[in-house]
Amino acid sequence: MIDPAAHLIHMRATAPLVHNIANYVSMNVMANVLLAAGASPAMIHAREEAAEFAAIAHALSVNIGTLSPPWVEGMAEAASVMTAAGKPWVLDPVAVGATAYRRRVGADLLALGPRVIRGNASEIMALAGATSAGKGADAADEVAAAENAARALARSTGAVVAVTGPVDFVVDGDAAWRVSNGDPMMTKVTALGCALSALVAAFVAGQAAGEAAGPATVAALAFYGLAGERAAAGAAGPGSFAVRFIDELHAITPADLRAGARVAAA
Amino acid sequence: MIDPAAHLIHMRATAPLVHNIANYVSMNVMANVLLAAGASPAMIHAREEAAEFAAIAHALSVNIGTLSPPWVEGMAEAASVMTAAGKPWVLDPVAVGATAYRRRVGADLLALGPRVIRGNASEIMALAGATSAGKGADAADEVAAAENAARALARSTGAVVAVTGPVDFVVDGDAAWRVSNGDPMMTKVTALGCALSALVAAFVAGQAAGEAAGPATVAALAFYGLAGERAAAGAAGPGSFAVRFIDELHAITPADLRAGARVAAA
Amino acid sequence: MIDPAAHLIHMRATAPLVHNIANYVSMNVMANVLLAAGASPAMIHAREEAAEFAAIAHALSVNIGTLSPPWVEGMAEAASVMTAAGKPWVLDPVAVGATAYRRRVGADLLALGPRVIRGNASEIMALAGATSAGKGADAADEVAAAENAARALARSTGAVVAVTGPVDFVVDGDAAWRVSNGDPMMTKVTALGCALSALVAAFVAGQAAGEAAGPATVAALAFYGLAGERAAAGAAGPGSFAVRFIDELHAITPADLRAGARVAAA
Repeated sequence: MIDPAAHLIHMRATAPLVHNIANYVSMNVMANVLLAAGASPAMIHAREEAAEFAAIAHALSVNIGTLSPPWVEGMAEAASVMTAAGKPWVLDPVAVGATAYRRRVGADLLALGPRVIRGNASEIMALAGATSAGKGADAADEVAAAENAARALARSTGAVVAVTGPVDFVVDGDAAWRVSNGDPMMTKVTALGCALSALVAAFVAGQAAGEAAGPATVAALAFYGLAGERAAAGAAGPGSFAVRFIDELHAITPADLRAGARVAAA
Repeated sequence: MIDPAAHLIHMRATAPLVHNIANYVSMNVMANVLLAAGASPAMIHAREEAAEFAAIAHALSVNIGTLSPPWVEGMAEAASVMTAAGKPWVLDPVAVGATAYRRRVGADLLALGPRVIRGNASEIMALAGATSAGKGADAADEVAAAENAARALARSTGAVVAVTGPVDFVVDGDAAWRVSNGDPMMTKVTALGCALSALVAAFVAGQAAGEAAGPATVAALAFYGLAGERAAAGAAGPGSFAVRFIDELHAITPADLRAGARVAAA
Repeated sequence: MIDPAAHLIHMRATAPLVHNIANYVSMNVMANVLLAAGASPAMIHAREEAAEFAAIAHALSVNIGTLSPPWVEGMAEAASVMTAAGKPWVLDPVAVGATAYRRRVGADLLALGPRVIRGNASEIMALAGATSAGKGADAADEVAAAENAARALARSTGAVVAVTGPVDFVVDGDAAWRVSNGDPMMTKVTALGCALSALVAAFVAGQAAGEAAGPATVAALAFYGLAGERAAAGAAGPGSFAVRFIDELHAITPADLRAGARVAAA
């Protein structure tokens, strides 16, 4: 039985330094999500320093949304440092099926050993080699249809795989869960998926290699989805929703999360 | 007679995938504007994939706000794909008169055949080769003074040219319109001009080469300006205005737009 | 005796064109802070045009948050132009102590003669060569502990040095001040420190070489902190705080600032 509140308490108590190599669209939102939730964000991407900074970070998130060769070098260097040190990093394979370049980079990063992979159904299917009707970063496939791909990807990589959508699906070895928190308004604000991957990094920060990352991932998803639900209540549209969402990430207490999380074994 | 509501209905019904190669300041706002209005944004710039992605997009917006040589390569490749495929793309020549580099890049992109060019008075005058007192991205010249430049630019390029300011001016071949929706508060929030260019791309998405892009451009401008008017009413300043603006882009119905659009032939 | 209101009046009356070479996380916020306060922002970084644009700007801010070699080239070219022309520029040494690359770039930029240096305690100590427990961009050291480093740095460079934190410390030659405006919520929103450095650039814009930049820097800090205090009153969390903060930068009058500034000689 997962207790998401315990993970939230731990994350806030440790305020992990999360190193993010993300995309241009999401960096500001990602930093604000991490700050509001209680983590400490840093964005550093250049090959000249990414590895050195990764060495002092507690977790890393890598996001290929607006990738280019110099950034991919920094991603690979930082990810390698984390894996070698047994520290967790999260891969967000944004629109990985959309171009050949993206597929190649996705495969290269996958080989570097992410602890968690978080994407929408299209992205997880593309990364697993399944067919996908990917269109940009939208979730064109149903989450359910991606569950097989997620299980296969988890098996082949040893990573926790989280497929997010109307209902999230998380698989960690033989265990799997569904998280049904969230609100459709979350799809009307850009970069909320990217920022979630960074928040997952904050929740798994400090975990040693071999420790099960699934429960912490589930906790992050439930917390995030609950913030979305609470923010949507009373929002006049996606603009005010986004503001209220950050407020909620800051306001939600462990007791709120314990009462509001909707997690079930799958 | 232009019916802006019909264009809004069409855009929302098709939810076009708009590929944007934009600047670092505007990408987040641009994505949120497109999402709130009902389109589907994607930001992909690297030479390694820009052309491949353009091939699946329904429209492209190119913005030179924070340009550098690798980005210009991606812009040129994506724009060429769109033009070759007869798909529309919009050029936003941010501060094009400010430096020699910017003037050169602006001229190079112009030669690739944008369907629409949207800028402030200074920018359109600079692009047309007229003299301009450009200072950054501010509109230092009156819109009226730029109308001749816009007509000349439209004639020499075959593109629709939109000069935005207190009153917008749009020219498409022999036809021209003025759109008087909007609010001065829109000039106090960064990147709203950039995001408008991307929204114009969403409105002209799907149009074949040779189809008149002027009416769809006018519709986008009226819709955007109406959102600005409605957001300004009750805003406490530029911060709350920006939030309400996104809400309004999501909330405005075709009936609202039909009632509120202020468009006149010019 | 510093009159912050006089500096605010001057900044708004001149609406200086502030050229910023900043980081990806902060550019949007920075532009909105400058616009709301009354200045005119521009973000231009490429080596191909940074120097040419600096020549027409009234002030420059340089921020190393997400640096990489091509950006550092643009920073150095623009800073050199400003120094050669006797125009002011502000250095924001984000997380300068975190990596060897960052320390090297920080030292190189320092040698180009910034008029003002603004950082948190860790950053100022790292730049001054003092020991620091820097972790990302957080203020791990007490401001008080950094005052000696600030005095030393001001002496060795001739720059005004501003250490911001719960109480800000500004040193300009033999004069020094403490500014106690502000609110802890300001640390829960990303990029507010970066944007403050750009606002300092707006306040010192137009000052000739040799003119004392300390009072204008102090005025910018008091204005910014007062906006933070007013925004925090009634904010539901960091999301709504950030919105209200921009509103307050726009709303605060010189009389408000005269009444609310808390500045003392140090």
